Amino acid sequence: MLRSCAARPRTLSALRAARGGAPRPARDPGPARRSFSTEKVIHKDRSLPNPSWSKDLRLLFDQFMKKCEDGSWKHLPSSECKVPQRIHSFKTYFLDSKPVKEDQLSQARPFTRSYEVGQGFEYAMFYNEDEKRTVCLFQGGPYLEGPPGFLHGGALATMIDTTLGVCTISCMGLFMTANLNINFKSPIPLCSVVVISSQLDKVEGRKVFVSCNVRSVDEKTLHSDATGLFIKLDPEKSLT
Amino acid sequence: MLRSCAARPRTLSALRAARGGAPRPARDPGPARRSFSTEKVIHKDRSLPNPSWSKDLRLLFDQFMKKCEDGSWKHLPSSECKVPQRIHSFKTYFLDSKPVKEDQLSQARPFTRSYEVGQGFEYAMFYNEDEKRTVCLFQGGPYLEGPPGFLHGGALATMIDTTLGVCTISCMGLFMTANLNINFKSPIPLCSVVVISSQLDKVEGRKVFVSCNVRSVDEKTLHSDATGLFIKLDPEKSLT
Repeated sequence: MLRSCAARPRTLSALRAARGGAPRPARDPGPARRSFSTEKVIHKDRSLPNPSWSKDLRLLFDQFMKKCEDGSWKHLPSSECKVPQRIHSFKTYFLDSKPVKEDQLSQARPFTRSYEVGQGFEYAMFYNEDEKRTVCLFQGGPYLEGPPGFLHGGALATMIDTTLGVCTISCMGLFMTANLNINFKSPIPLCSVVVISSQLDKVEGRKVFVSCNVRSVDEKTLHSDATGLFIKLDPEKSLT
Repeated sequence: MLRSCAARPRTLSALRAARGGAPRPARDPGPARRSFSTEKVIHKDRSLPNPSWSKDLRLLFDQFMKKCEDGSWKHLPSSECKVPQRIHSFKTYFLDSKPVKEDQLSQARPFTRSYEVGQGFEYAMFYNEDEKRTVCLFQGGPYLEGPPGFLHGGALATMIDTTLGVCTISCMGLFMTANLNINFKSPIPLCSVVVISSQLDKVEGRKVFVSCNVRSVDEKTLHSDATGLFIKLDPEKSLT
């Protein structure tokens, strides 16, 4: 929904992916607690292969890592997130929002990394700066069920939002998703892998137009296509 | 994404809500395992107040339960879900889909009820048959974080999809979400309560057009508005 920029041009989605870290073993007490202090919070990289990844996801990941060797593509890791900076940034823009209680915030987890490994959103993202394209390799786990045996449409919408957000990476500053328009073409079997391919289509002032499609690994099935409109936040200007 | 009908006119979203049950205590081994047998699986009602509900959510819930007394509104409980019927129904429509392995399906949980109580999606739904309206009272827990301190746009999209689905309750049969078009107006503070008010706008053959808005409890803030197009599935006709 919102896209942020920390030390370098980076969307919130990228930061979500980056911050996703803290892959907790089954009996781990939880991810690192956050605070409003100036401490730097470093998370582990959740976008690397783990035992829950299917053969399809591993093969695709290896293929894209291979593409990274010549520098045309870049793997977006889940690390080095400076949480206090981000909190400060968002506070600047939404001073009028009802504050979240400290004890609630201390329990917060980034949505797409809030499940134990393998249960929910397993994904890795790759970015091609020259082509302004982002690819997300996504395996929806068993806790993301909608219809019996199929992925929930909201889970797909979540990954589309995240991927389109990363696709705005070339633009500096803070972004907010203003619109998501998603066509659902064919349901996605639970635990299968899909490829979300997004591209930056147009920039008009503060508006960034992006689009994506979601296909099966063999590319034969078009599961979904979508467009997104992102607005660059400006403290001097209204969002509407 | 998909909407189903079991014994009576009911969307998948309603069934999701209905099926949501099995609120697991912290050390509970998990929800009831599912199978393809003819057993009837009964879940507890997850749409009733629990200790994680804020004062706002409890007050709104009580107000709507009061409205139910004269029969104009109806609370949609999370119970009486006949899982094998639903699985059979969806298998009929998506025979060409890659089958999900039995061991993966046995671990599956409905997305909007996959978190422990209070961590994720806490909601209750009410339906007004005469007005073709559905209201969802939604509290997004700390595991649904997007930007620091705010709800993830995908989590909101999930509840919009679910609520719009329930709004097709007056139509018999199986439904599939064909399109979701969501405008994000103002970010939702994490752990706060919002009201998703949806209505059925138009029915054209197999197409059902619905819309909704998402407001704060005091109705002063419009967080989002959205439209949805649902297609009634027909085994004799293509989806496209």
